[in-house]
Amino acid sequence: MARIALDAMGGDYAPTAPVGGALLALAELAPEHRIQLIGREADVEAAVEAALTGDYAALAPHRARLEIVDAPDVIAMADKPTAVMRRPLSSMAVGLRRHAEGHADAFLSAGNTGAQMAASVQILGLHEGLRRPAIGTIFPTAQQTVVVLDSGANVDCSPEELVHFARLGLVYAEDIMGRTNPAIGLLSIGEEPEKGNAVVKAAHQLLAQSRLHFVGNVEGRDVAAGTCDRGPFDVVVCDGFTGNVILKFYEGLAPMLIRMIATSVGADPKEMMQGLAHLDYSNYGGAPLLGVRGVSIIAHGSSSPRAIKNAVNVAIRAAESGLSEHIGRRLAAAASAA
Amino acid sequence: MARIALDAMGGDYAPTAPVGGALLALAELAPEHRIQLIGREADVEAAVEAALTGDYAALAPHRARLEIVDAPDVIAMADKPTAVMRRPLSSMAVGLRRHAEGHADAFLSAGNTGAQMAASVQILGLHEGLRRPAIGTIFPTAQQTVVVLDSGANVDCSPEELVHFARLGLVYAEDIMGRTNPAIGLLSIGEEPEKGNAVVKAAHQLLAQSRLHFVGNVEGRDVAAGTCDRGPFDVVVCDGFTGNVILKFYEGLAPMLIRMIATSVGADPKEMMQGLAHLDYSNYGGAPLLGVRGVSIIAHGSSSPRAIKNAVNVAIRAAESGLSEHIGRRLAAAASAA
Repeated sequence: MARIALDAMGGDYAPTAPVGGALLALAELAPEHRIQLIGREADVEAAVEAALTGDYAALAPHRARLEIVDAPDVIAMADKPTAVMRRPLSSMAVGLRRHAEGHADAFLSAGNTGAQMAASVQILGLHEGLRRPAIGTIFPTAQQTVVVLDSGANVDCSPEELVHFARLGLVYAEDIMGRTNPAIGLLSIGEEPEKGNAVVKAAHQLLAQSRLHFVGNVEGRDVAAGTCDRGPFDVVVCDGFTGNVILKFYEGLAPMLIRMIATSVGADPKEMMQGLAHLDYSNYGGAPLLGVRGVSIIAHGSSSPRAIKNAVNVAIRAAESGLSEHIGRRLAAAASAA
Repeated sequence: MARIALDAMGGDYAPTAPVGGALLALAELAPEHRIQLIGREADVEAAVEAALTGDYAALAPHRARLEIVDAPDVIAMADKPTAVMRRPLSSMAVGLRRHAEGHADAFLSAGNTGAQMAASVQILGLHEGLRRPAIGTIFPTAQQTVVVLDSGANVDCSPEELVHFARLGLVYAEDIMGRTNPAIGLLSIGEEPEKGNAVVKAAHQLLAQSRLHFVGNVEGRDVAAGTCDRGPFDVVVCDGFTGNVILKFYEGLAPMLIRMIATSVGADPKEMMQGLAHLDYSNYGGAPLLGVRGVSIIAHGSSSPRAIKNAVNVAIRAAESGLSEHIGRRLAAAASAA
């Protein structure tokens, strides 16, 4: 049984998309799971009412597993990340506190990512040895999916932080992606250990000396392929600047290419998109903020109800698998081995 | 009239592809242009013979505008970049010396990029104020093409170097892409000036204070679109690590997506590729090594004869437009204004 605290006020289409996503999720989930919608009570009530008298009328039986938790304040997308610290009644702060205090097993938001990160660190805390959490994002590839991290939380990283990302990604690959002995690649600009910038070269040495299943450097084209000359990999380690650039590049490039191709072959881009569901981000739901003591799932600001539903699934998998506890244990084991 | 020194021994398909590309280029170029094939005389002779008795028989009339220049040594793809310094009889060193000494107007190679860069700097020299040259690569976008630089020559860059790249890219956009008052974007992870890593944030300040037509930060998805909220741009500035990662990511992702889409709609991937020629790298030919005193064009190692032909066109445009002289003047003007 998992209880998910869902930020009903977060995202471009709040509260409609979170409310719709919650209903879609409950309809598919085993009956013991619960969702708590955190937000302005009247607004959330109205959105639930609108959903159940509109498109989601068939989902009315699941209303009983939906709890509304009042949070009178809202963090806007444009607010500074630190704003959340001064606003304890915001849906983000209220939801994270519920999780920290044991009233929910995970928190999920499609709202202001910077604020969610800051509040998650403050309210949930970080595992020993970490300076900041990392965002792990799923990339569809020609082979299987890979998790790329950090994809935006840490812009300037030390070699040691890149090694932390490898450990965080490893547990993510095991617990969320179901991989055994996940293989780790280090994003660089050539496969040789001496290729890369100063931080990457130093990180390569540390990873090669670690007990991790390290396949060495992987290049941009390997990330698209999901494999390199030394075999497939599950985790791609990079600093949050590079990770965020390629994530957004992917997000922009895939639909652009699909549109161009559809036009050139005279097909309907929307239909073509549907045939390529495995390339659609919203299928992969939310990205866990890795390294915090608990489960804080970041959903894309433009999340549809379906994307929220998928993010709820990620939240449940993270909570039930014990992702955060596994990360804590692995970091502690690595620290005591060093 | 331009005389292009073409490394006949460089690239995965040498000497066949350079020889084929030279013939294809001459067939299209105005009759005053000349190509010098630099390489092991016997091997190059044999490749020319094979081409003219085989697939390129129809191009025999252009043989007269092809000169073979003997260079008994070859730099292999796997050689260390510095190897070229100790091998003055390699096709790369011989070709670059011909250009430096005024016997050719440009040099072009699909061989070892690191070696070409090192030898270009040593033999041609750099414009005042530069520490290293930059590679400018054309990216097809949803709008027009953009030039991304540096795409691999400089892995750790200072903010000042990123500003140099902006000036180099600006001249490239004017001279090679034919743009007027080119707009410059700085690759980052958010449009706000305070987004990015330490180097990018500092570079943003410098670019904002410069007289360049700076549109501000652009994100990964803007690069795919060729435009951002503040309008379209022509030049994307980034360090060579990030630039190389996204270049290779693009190179890997585009064919992968096309294959996946072709499979999903039951089309032939090869035919679909042909319909999308504007996404095909080989159409954009070579990437000039920007900042050297002269024209040194880097072609992809896997260049086909058609890709070499397109790279010859870039070399001619660079030589005839006075790209290198314009870069020298612009850097000098910026230095004296500072």
